Amino acid sequence: MSEPPAGVPHVLVVGAGFGGLRCVRALAHAPVRLTLVDRTNHHLFQPMLYEVATSVLGANEIAAATRHLFRHQRNVAVHMTGIERVDLAAKCAFDGEGRATRYDWLVLAPGVVTDYFGHADWAEHAPGLKSLDDALVVRRRVLMAFERAEITPDPAARRALLTFVIVGAGATGVELAGAIGELANFTLRHDFRAIDPREAQVLLLDAGERVLPSFAPSLSARARRDLERLGVTVRTGVRVGDIGPGFVVAGDERIATEATIWSAGTRGAPLLGTLGTPLDRQGRAIVGPDGALPGHPEVFVVGDAAHVEDARFGTLPGVAQVAMQMGTHAARCIRADLDARPRRAFAYFDKGQLAVIGRGHAVLQVGPVRLAGFPAWIAWALVHVTFLIGFRNRVITMLEWARTYFFHRRAGRVIVGGD
Amino acid sequence: MSEPPAGVPHVLVVGAGFGGLRCVRALAHAPVRLTLVDRTNHHLFQPMLYEVATSVLGANEIAAATRHLFRHQRNVAVHMTGIERVDLAAKCAFDGEGRATRYDWLVLAPGVVTDYFGHADWAEHAPGLKSLDDALVVRRRVLMAFERAEITPDPAARRALLTFVIVGAGATGVELAGAIGELANFTLRHDFRAIDPREAQVLLLDAGERVLPSFAPSLSARARRDLERLGVTVRTGVRVGDIGPGFVVAGDERIATEATIWSAGTRGAPLLGTLGTPLDRQGRAIVGPDGALPGHPEVFVVGDAAHVEDARFGTLPGVAQVAMQMGTHAARCIRADLDARPRRAFAYFDKGQLAVIGRGHAVLQVGPVRLAGFPAWIAWALVHVTFLIGFRNRVITMLEWARTYFFHRRAGRVIVGGD
Repeated sequence: MSEPPAGVPHVLVVGAGFGGLRCVRALAHAPVRLTLVDRTNHHLFQPMLYEVATSVLGANEIAAATRHLFRHQRNVAVHMTGIERVDLAAKCAFDGEGRATRYDWLVLAPGVVTDYFGHADWAEHAPGLKSLDDALVVRRRVLMAFERAEITPDPAARRALLTFVIVGAGATGVELAGAIGELANFTLRHDFRAIDPREAQVLLLDAGERVLPSFAPSLSARARRDLERLGVTVRTGVRVGDIGPGFVVAGDERIATEATIWSAGTRGAPLLGTLGTPLDRQGRAIVGPDGALPGHPEVFVVGDAAHVEDARFGTLPGVAQVAMQMGTHAARCIRADLDARPRRAFAYFDKGQLAVIGRGHAVLQVGPVRLAGFPAWIAWALVHVTFLIGFRNRVITMLEWARTYFFHRRAGRVIVGGD
Repeated sequence: MSEPPAGVPHVLVVGAGFGGLRCVRALAHAPVRLTLVDRTNHHLFQPMLYEVATSVLGANEIAAATRHLFRHQRNVAVHMTGIERVDLAAKCAFDGEGRATRYDWLVLAPGVVTDYFGHADWAEHAPGLKSLDDALVVRRRVLMAFERAEITPDPAARRALLTFVIVGAGATGVELAGAIGELANFTLRHDFRAIDPREAQVLLLDAGERVLPSFAPSLSARARRDLERLGVTVRTGVRVGDIGPGFVVAGDERIATEATIWSAGTRGAPLLGTLGTPLDRQGRAIVGPDGALPGHPEVFVVGDAAHVEDARFGTLPGVAQVAMQMGTHAARCIRADLDARPRRAFAYFDKGQLAVIGRGHAVLQVGPVRLAGFPAWIAWALVHVTFLIGFRNRVITMLEWARTYFFHRRAGRVIVGGD
C-alpha cells in the first residue's frame, strides 16, 4: 500500500465520517502525508439517514464520494477498504485482506455499529439505521408493507403489514417514527385503492421514561405530543423481550408486524477491540483529555467510537458536533507535535441539539434556550442545509425539501434491491 | 385480488413501462376498471438508465413510484406483483403466488429481458442494463474497479481493473461507453493519487459492421469518431466467444477485465411463452395489425415485447416511442370496442431517434433529417427533459444536468449494496 515518501510523516485516518473528514481537512497545509481509509466510498450525512429510509431524499442527496471531496487536497490519498486490526506496538493497521499500512499518527474514527444487546438474531427482523444500505433496507420494508397490504385481502395479515414498530426513542427513532407517520397520513393518502394508508399503526417503543432523553423534559413532552398528532403511538417504559419473523414482544404483548426498525442501541466498532486498551460498557475506546489513547499519544479516537469525559458536560454524546470538534482537535494536536509545542486538552463547545418530528415541527435546545414547533423547525432546516454545503448543491436540496415539505410529494419512492 | 364491480368491464395492464403507462392514462375517462400490475413499484425512464449506471443521475431522478403517478386517476388500482402466466381461455392472469386476476381486456407490456444467446452463465460476469437494480450493479462494478485499482500495486492486475468491456454497440452500448469514457477522462481526473483514471481502457465490441446500426451509416461513422475522441476503442466485426471471471474472449483475443457489461441482446419476457401464440425468434409475441394477438382480440401486446410489422417501417424497433404509441392505440381499440365501433390498424408515426455520446455530442435522425455534434446534443437534452415532466421536477433535473455537464461533477457517486 502507499508508503509515504521518506522523511514525511504519515497520518492514517480511519473512517470518513464527520470526525475523520474534519481531521483531514484541518491537516491540508500540514507537512504530512495523509491516508483516509473507509469501507464505503462515501461520506454520509448520517443525521438525515431517516429521510432516505422514508423516501424524503434519495441516497445521492445525503452522501458524496469521499475522494471527490478531497480531489484538490493533494496531501491525502483516499483508500476504500476496511481496517480490521491495529498493532499499536508496530504502529501498523491491517485491512481485511491483510494489507498493512504504517503510520506515525493514527486517527481512529470508525464509528459505531447497531447493538442488539446480545440478541444478534434480531438483526434480520429489525434492521438498524447506520448506513445507506441500512436506509435502503428500511425503505424497502416500509414501502413493501404498504404494497403487500394493498393486495392482501385477509384483515389480520393486512393489519400486521400496516403495523410499523420502531424500537428506541432517541433522535433517530423519533425522527423515523414522525416521518413514517407523515408518509401514512399525508404522502400516501391518495395512492391506494384497497387500503387507507391512514389505518397504519406506527408504534414507538422505549424502555426509558420519555422520548428524546437527552433533551429537557418539557421538550420530550412536546415531541411526544407532536408524534401523537401524526398518529404515532408512543409507549415508554416498555421493554422488548423478543423479535422474530412477523412479531415483536413488548412487555406482555405480542405485536404482529412485518416492519420493525431498531434504533435502541449502538456499540463502538469491533476494530476498537483489537487495540488492547480500555473500552467502556458500550465498546467505546476510553481516551485521555487530549483525545489520545492512554500510553499512545500517537493514536487518537474521535467521534462516537470514543468515550470522552468533558469537565462541563460529562460523557459526550455520539453526535456530529462532538465528532467534528474532536477531529479538528486531533489535527491540532498533530500540528502541535510537529511544531514541538505542548498539546491542549479537548474542550467541547455545545452548539445544541435538534430533532424534527414530521413537517413543520421540531425541538431545539441550545444551552438554556428551548424552542419547539415551527420556529425550531425553521432552525432545523437552516442548520441542515448549511451542513450540506460542499458535497451537495444547496439549491437542489432546498428545492427538494420545499417540494417534499410543502406539497407532501415524494415522487422518487423507489424500491431497489431484494432483501 | 380486486374483482371489479359487477357490470364494469375490467382492463388488466401488465407492465408499468412506457406502453402500459400510456394505455392506462388514455383510459382515464373510459367506463372501465383498470388494474396496472408491475413487479417493481416504479415507472422507469429506461433510456436514461446508463446515466444512473455511470453516476450522472441518481436512481430517484429517472424513476417514480407508479401509484404516485396515478394517485388522482380513480379508475385504476396499482398492484406490485409479477404476472407469470396467462390462461387465454379462462381470461385469467396469475402472479407468482398463484393469485388469479380475471380480465375482459388484457394489455401485456412486460418488456424484454437481457439475452445471452444461450450462455446464461455469462450473466454473472456481464450484467445487462434493463432495471434500476442492474444500473446499480453496473455502477458498483465500474466505481469499484477504480477503487481497487488505486490500492492494487501489481501492474497487470491494475490494468485488468482499468479495462472496461461493453458488448453490443446499439444505443445502450454506445451511450454507456461514452459515459464511462467521460468518467475516466474528465469526472475522475483529480480524484486518485496512485492511478491516473485516463489510463482506463474502454472497449466497445460488436459482431456487426458498425455502431448504432439503426442509424444512417454517416451517423454511425460520426458516433464512432466521437467515441474515439473520448478514448473509447471501438471494435466491430468481432464476436464474443466466452465471458468468465476476469476475462472476455473476443475473436482470438483474451481480454483481462473486471467489469464487463452486456448490451448485445434481449428477448421478450418469459411470460409471453405461456400464451401459446406465435413468438418470433427473439421471443416477442407476434401481433396483428391492431396490436392484438391473432384469435384473441381482447389481448394486446405492446412495446418491445411485441413483434409488429408496420407497412412503412417494417418490424418496429423496441424503443419508447413505439411502446407509447402502441399503448395509446390499445386504449383506443378498447374504447372502440366499448362503443361497438370498428378498430383501426396501428400506424407508427416516426419521431426519429437519438443517441448521445458523452458531453455535448449526439446523433439525431428524424426521417430525412440527420444531425450530429452539439446541435443534436441540444435536441437530445430538450427531448429528455420534456419526457421527464410529470414524474420529476423539471427544474431540479435541469440543474443536475447543468452541473454534471458543465462542471463534470458527479458528487453523488455512491456505491450501495454488495454484489
